[in-house]
Amino acid sequence: MAGRRQQQRPIYIQVHQADNVAVIATEGGLPGGTLFPCGLELKESVPQGHKIALTDLSPGEPILRYGEIIGFARREILRGSWVDESLVEMPPPRSLEKLPMATRVPKPLPPLEGITFEGFRNPDGSAATKNLLGIHTSVQCVAGVVNHAVRQIRERILPRYPGVDDVVALNHTYGCGVAIDAPQAVVPIRTLQNLARHPNFGGEILIVGLGCEKLPPERLSTDGERGSILSLQDCRGFEKMVASLLEKAEERLIRLNRRSRVTCPLSDLVVGLQCGGSDALSGVSANPAVGYAADLLVRAGATVLFSEVTEVRDAIHLLTPRAADSETARALIREMEYYDRYLESGGVDRSANTTPGNRKGGLANIVEKSLGSIAKSGRSAISDVLAPGERVRRRGLVFAATPASDFICGTLQLASGIHLQVFTTGRGTPYGLSMAPVIKVSTRDELHDQWPDLIDISAGAVLTGESTVEEVGRKIFLRILEVASGRKKVWADRWKLSNDLCLFNPAPVT
Amino acid sequence: MAGRRQQQRPIYIQVHQADNVAVIATEGGLPGGTLFPCGLELKESVPQGHKIALTDLSPGEPILRYGEIIGFARREILRGSWVDESLVEMPPPRSLEKLPMATRVPKPLPPLEGITFEGFRNPDGSAATKNLLGIHTSVQCVAGVVNHAVRQIRERILPRYPGVDDVVALNHTYGCGVAIDAPQAVVPIRTLQNLARHPNFGGEILIVGLGCEKLPPERLSTDGERGSILSLQDCRGFEKMVASLLEKAEERLIRLNRRSRVTCPLSDLVVGLQCGGSDALSGVSANPAVGYAADLLVRAGATVLFSEVTEVRDAIHLLTPRAADSETARALIREMEYYDRYLESGGVDRSANTTPGNRKGGLANIVEKSLGSIAKSGRSAISDVLAPGERVRRRGLVFAATPASDFICGTLQLASGIHLQVFTTGRGTPYGLSMAPVIKVSTRDELHDQWPDLIDISAGAVLTGESTVEEVGRKIFLRILEVASGRKKVWADRWKLSNDLCLFNPAPVT
Repeated sequence: MAGRRQQQRPIYIQVHQADNVAVIATEGGLPGGTLFPCGLELKESVPQGHKIALTDLSPGEPILRYGEIIGFARREILRGSWVDESLVEMPPPRSLEKLPMATRVPKPLPPLEGITFEGFRNPDGSAATKNLLGIHTSVQCVAGVVNHAVRQIRERILPRYPGVDDVVALNHTYGCGVAIDAPQAVVPIRTLQNLARHPNFGGEILIVGLGCEKLPPERLSTDGERGSILSLQDCRGFEKMVASLLEKAEERLIRLNRRSRVTCPLSDLVVGLQCGGSDALSGVSANPAVGYAADLLVRAGATVLFSEVTEVRDAIHLLTPRAADSETARALIREMEYYDRYLESGGVDRSANTTPGNRKGGLANIVEKSLGSIAKSGRSAISDVLAPGERVRRRGLVFAATPASDFICGTLQLASGIHLQVFTTGRGTPYGLSMAPVIKVSTRDELHDQWPDLIDISAGAVLTGESTVEEVGRKIFLRILEVASGRKKVWADRWKLSNDLCLFNPAPVT
Repeated sequence: MAGRRQQQRPIYIQVHQADNVAVIATEGGLPGGTLFPCGLELKESVPQGHKIALTDLSPGEPILRYGEIIGFARREILRGSWVDESLVEMPPPRSLEKLPMATRVPKPLPPLEGITFEGFRNPDGSAATKNLLGIHTSVQCVAGVVNHAVRQIRERILPRYPGVDDVVALNHTYGCGVAIDAPQAVVPIRTLQNLARHPNFGGEILIVGLGCEKLPPERLSTDGERGSILSLQDCRGFEKMVASLLEKAEERLIRLNRRSRVTCPLSDLVVGLQCGGSDALSGVSANPAVGYAADLLVRAGATVLFSEVTEVRDAIHLLTPRAADSETARALIREMEYYDRYLESGGVDRSANTTPGNRKGGLANIVEKSLGSIAKSGRSAISDVLAPGERVRRRGLVFAATPASDFICGTLQLASGIHLQVFTTGRGTPYGLSMAPVIKVSTRDELHDQWPDLIDISAGAVLTGESTVEEVGRKIFLRILEVASGRKKVWADRWKLSNDLCLFNPAPVT
């Protein structure tokens, strides 16, 4: 294929004109001696995604990428050399004091009028991208019974209700054996409460409790008359438990099955953004393209969440100026401080982020990773900041504070109310969510070619120059509308691949 | 039934002659005015399991149960009154300094010779109570793929290998997005390593990793040539991932299917003890009966683990004297101190334990709960202390330090190598483990009657005087041998009910 052959051309990508390093975009990397059109010659073999020096760097000299300092040269590095992570001294963490607050609030981009999707309309006025029966749980103790019931519902009952997409068990590890009154217990409790209210359950939530747990199921219940609690200790034996669950499930399936999709404005849509298994190309191809899609979503009136505290911490000085007002900027700083303290209490710091895979993919440290990560947020003003697991309350671009762990971030964004997630990956992961579709975007064509039945879109054409960031961003935006409308299934949903709900519980277990 | 009628007799149980309170054993509780054979008259209605005053108690007077102070009277309490939790002032935590260490080491009870069970013999010489194919995972990212593969193996392949009991996916929330180098990360990592080595997998462990995670799958691998790692990032697409997994699974199923049970001495057996959903009768019926069974197991050469730090913390002064030597006593204290600090760092203390169900069941506080909990440990010397997730290394009665959370304790005891768990419950839970059978023992007949298809044995006859603690203890011991030998299935296994693996991770997530 022409595209494939083209990729073998020697290409490096310099993100910002001030940068003194660039990353190799060519698939498979490049051998020593490679001559670039600009005249630069590689002094050694460099893998794809890894950095090369564009100028000679003296020991201690700042290394610039994205126009920002990602570290300092540990020794002299000659032009055309591989700037391996071992040569990059990580800068100290940026102080959270005296950050510019709401100093460069982006003007709203021109609105995109009349863009809609086909969603389910909920009784409370919200919309849904899936029509799911949710079976929530107040405690892990009931997981075995709920899983048994869900298998039976899927096999015997669900086929009679083709208008319902699936039945989802909300199992988790919380609810008992935990310090329920600890100051930080608010985080997992709020998360579970908000998961129960997720719009894709259409207000038909069913909650299974045990009866003696620390987290009473009533605390997860919504006000709606359709909320219902089954307490297993009130049942006479296992078979009765399952029978009760099946009966309550079918009542809800009957109602859910009557729903059909209607045209909804994009102001009803909440989209979450996340990256996982990142590489040095994430910040060049997939994340900027997702950032452009985020701008289109915001322009069309939608709500867009970006997250991952440890992956914005080192780029916070680029975010606080974009906060819509100083209160929002302060909230951003508050979430950074919270996480600094949390990590410190466990004897670590922000450098606990970056994985072996990140580094293999060319990321020298968390500073470089963060600068690439925030590209997902596009160019809009930041309209609001949510503490972990809080529900969205304002439209536009929102920072939802979460750990960067894929599965914890996914769970917390679901609690915040996302209808759909866009997930970028450089190394590749079969990640999925049971409650909302996940569109997986690869940074490189190579990954998309290797996993054609898992990666939904490749942003690799940005690297070869075959497409612009805007073109791929528009493609992602259109795919979001298709998936939200049920016209196209993401790979994770076709295979029914989903990760577990994983709570963020900064409080002790007992 | 005569037994049922008998229970309506007014019965209270005084555990120790020094006690000034007793608990109501009569099913359904007793109304005010009830006259006991000893002449005591109830001043008010008292629910089953709750305490009554045997003497008049002055304000501030110590309240004694199990011969120990469980609290102080908050106001005057007259003889025959309900000693509700609101009347019991919890004592301050016992100092961990100057505890008696190995001062009353119990002499070994007479050995029980020649007792055996029918287990599977593993290549490394250990024995197994189940013949399971384990599919371990290095990271949550792969859970969706592994679950998909396990469904296919169960439906399409496992029926051809009737000698294999089941295929078990070891999914968990660790492996990435965690502070892998934090001081406390040793706990979840060791747990995952030891889960992979569980004897019920017969040394045939298969590990699925992603390829870019912080916890490399190699760290979970055993030395044996039969260990095998599948890294999903090395596969070409989802269907290939599943095909590879099925192929590797079948290779192992062929080998596992050739095994059959052989006679094993009880020195090959490791039994875990746990309680969950406890009530005030736990320390009177089920736990002492399990304690007697524990003594029989130790006498027959087996290894018995008891656990749950917050449920021994307030009875630690009764355990350190029983330690086999002062080193073991110090290890007990070390685990208590560790947990004190852990809870304190989260802004709570030991009083975070006791659930609403515990209190509804008559337990005033964690002190009373602990005194009942340690009854499970019987009367043997404590031969060893394991930090959370460590593997057993000595026979006899071992304290395996774990949180009291049912699912975390279960996971950690599995990592320590238990072949079978005995689980006592007053309030009732459908708890189960995928890797080892769980015998559930109820404290009351009422619960067994209500859940006849979940509770394996009732210790309720101890309350009515129809059976002694020793008789029920012997019944539990015999059931352990039957279940370990595969001659009898526990209810949880009949329904395939199991809880999730839940790790204890005292380190931060990122």
